[in-house]
Amino acid sequence: MSYISSLRCLLCGREYKPTEVIYTCPRCGHNGILEVNYNYEVIKKVFTKESLENNKNFFMWRYLPLLPIDNPSLIGPLNVGWTPLYEAKRMMDYLGVNNLWIKDDGRNPTASLKDRASAIAVVKAQELGIATLTCASTGNAASSLAGASASLGLKNFIFVPRTAPKAKIAQLLVFGATVFAINGTYDQAFDLSIEASENFGWYNRNTAYNPYMVEGKKTVALEIAEQMNFDVPDYVFVSVGDGCIISGVHKGFYDLFNLGFVNKIPKLVAVQAEGCKPIVDAVNGDGVIKYVEPHTIADSISVGIPRNGKMAVRDIKESGGFGIAVSDDEILSSIKLLGSIQGIFAEPAGVTGFAGYIKAITNGVIAKNSKVVVIVTGNGLKDVDSAMKSVKSPLQIEPSLESVKCALNNICR
Amino acid sequence: MSYISSLRCLLCGREYKPTEVIYTCPRCGHNGILEVNYNYEVIKKVFTKESLENNKNFFMWRYLPLLPIDNPSLIGPLNVGWTPLYEAKRMMDYLGVNNLWIKDDGRNPTASLKDRASAIAVVKAQELGIATLTCASTGNAASSLAGASASLGLKNFIFVPRTAPKAKIAQLLVFGATVFAINGTYDQAFDLSIEASENFGWYNRNTAYNPYMVEGKKTVALEIAEQMNFDVPDYVFVSVGDGCIISGVHKGFYDLFNLGFVNKIPKLVAVQAEGCKPIVDAVNGDGVIKYVEPHTIADSISVGIPRNGKMAVRDIKESGGFGIAVSDDEILSSIKLLGSIQGIFAEPAGVTGFAGYIKAITNGVIAKNSKVVVIVTGNGLKDVDSAMKSVKSPLQIEPSLESVKCALNNICR
Repeated sequence: MSYISSLRCLLCGREYKPTEVIYTCPRCGHNGILEVNYNYEVIKKVFTKESLENNKNFFMWRYLPLLPIDNPSLIGPLNVGWTPLYEAKRMMDYLGVNNLWIKDDGRNPTASLKDRASAIAVVKAQELGIATLTCASTGNAASSLAGASASLGLKNFIFVPRTAPKAKIAQLLVFGATVFAINGTYDQAFDLSIEASENFGWYNRNTAYNPYMVEGKKTVALEIAEQMNFDVPDYVFVSVGDGCIISGVHKGFYDLFNLGFVNKIPKLVAVQAEGCKPIVDAVNGDGVIKYVEPHTIADSISVGIPRNGKMAVRDIKESGGFGIAVSDDEILSSIKLLGSIQGIFAEPAGVTGFAGYIKAITNGVIAKNSKVVVIVTGNGLKDVDSAMKSVKSPLQIEPSLESVKCALNNICR
Repeated sequence: MSYISSLRCLLCGREYKPTEVIYTCPRCGHNGILEVNYNYEVIKKVFTKESLENNKNFFMWRYLPLLPIDNPSLIGPLNVGWTPLYEAKRMMDYLGVNNLWIKDDGRNPTASLKDRASAIAVVKAQELGIATLTCASTGNAASSLAGASASLGLKNFIFVPRTAPKAKIAQLLVFGATVFAINGTYDQAFDLSIEASENFGWYNRNTAYNPYMVEGKKTVALEIAEQMNFDVPDYVFVSVGDGCIISGVHKGFYDLFNLGFVNKIPKLVAVQAEGCKPIVDAVNGDGVIKYVEPHTIADSISVGIPRNGKMAVRDIKESGGFGIAVSDDEILSSIKLLGSIQGIFAEPAGVTGFAGYIKAITNGVIAKNSKVVVIVTGNGLKDVDSAMKSVKSPLQIEPSLESVKCALNNICR
């Protein structure tokens, strides 16, 4: 059994046992997101820095005592987590900063951070004896769920906006999911998937509805802390859509703070696209989320109704962080910059946190010697069409040395 | 300094010191591929099963004593290797076999096995004081070289056929490479890149020309052996283009056999597309490579002139293995099968080895209880257009439960 002590409603504060409720607070309805509380005093007895040191499981499951899993034998076979944390030496030289780290979560099984949450979802569904799962997604949550489900023989019904990038659709279909491409937005897909799961009895993985997704996503922060030898950064920059990843990052550091592994929680910086920045505006303003019609190339964070907005705003403010918005052009040029300087290829939303970091450094919002981790949330191969907008075309030549020389001369001219 | 004892010409057998020659045998010319020999007796003193057990470097560099590296401080920052080896339990049930393992090398930094070779190339170039590299590629060799080069600030000039999949081109351009898309085949790109590197002084990474690429690729076999606790499989199935990966697989097991880590070398099975199978025909026939005009959807192995053919045929025959060809339709259906049963998404050439395994089992060429490793050489996100040919389209619906029900009824009908 897990070390969960209770599930607490974000709105009314009422607490439940995990056996009493599956998704949200029965009193508050769909907006009553439940937060997972753990019995840290008991966890401290089995989970220590020494036990971690001796743990040869280099996946997210090395943090099992901090995860909401009752039956570990139901964990899927794909290797999720323990992604690289790179000290970005060349980027530091390029930007004139001196303490920048990049966590490349595009190295997960289906090439996004969302694999961490889906790995939890498939276990929770099986624990309930449910073999069919659903979710709404801009693409990555779904492809991660479909991959994890395929590896375990679970069925999927997926709701995505018709505009989702082709690569994410291809993943879904290859993994065998039934895909509903809806003539509408992610926000509509979200509501429809809940209606469908209530109607058909499918287990629902939706972010900010299923209480356990934040718990999966927090493993990225657990890893960052351990990979930095528990000397945590001053800031963590995260791209934000629904606001579930950034709350996961907060939760990971919060867990470690409560266990005495780290002495502070980093300031969390939410980065959104200028065309879709309800959480940035709320964090920097009165704290209230105002819904917007999303307009951005970064499909994964093109979320006008951020379902986890309330929790995210609270977490960012509590950490002492802030919000920052970047243009689509800044996102595109960051794809090229991160690729050409560090050899890391990120999708638009994957690189948005990094674009925000550059803006924060450039504008003097944070000091150049701040210790910063930027999370890359998804691989560039997920959205090649957007990447191509950030670069020039190849040089078309005939297969001859003369043709090479001519092309090179044209470049130099 | 490395533990290399000599470089030996595949054609004339003449041996050279590594300081004497950079690419091929001076006597035999471009076809005189050099093989790297090591001083195993000295390596045995520093590299043991115990030293591996205590080694916490879980990248390809954990095998450093078996690699052709003189200056390890020049190794790039990207985390290459130690990719998952999955026991394919669901696939075993599906196929009615009982000892199948899948090595997912699509989990490398630029999403293909080629990262292992490029990681070596960038070190060798720097050791020679050369900061500009070139290669010809169907796509993956180049994108891996470009990623590794970007992470170290090295320049790239890349030659690819104009028909290379867009995702691979996007990787190249995002990583900052200068890309020559030639109006011709990979085979023409190969010759042109050598001409260009001789003319401009660029370091050449070409497979079967640069002697060290096999050494990088062999780390996949070193990992397979270690991940299986040195109880190696009966067969390893590998997709084959130039024949360099399969020779790398052979070399890895050969090294471990000479060190006494394993008691046999697995039988190597070369899998090619029916529309491009010069190595399969040579292995199963008189051993002589006959060049063909390639016709296959699997771009990474669409190689009519397999530059490493002679070595590959020798290695496959010595191992007791064989060749097998599969149709493009079999390749496409294998993409869907591997994705939907195991949650692993592979590009066409990446799944070709697996398609060959299915054919070999179906035709009774190998026994169903044979212990087999299939190597997946590249991620499906590399070629989404091909993947889409293996699946049905999403269900287009309006955002309403009625629309969902209607679509489900249509499926069930």
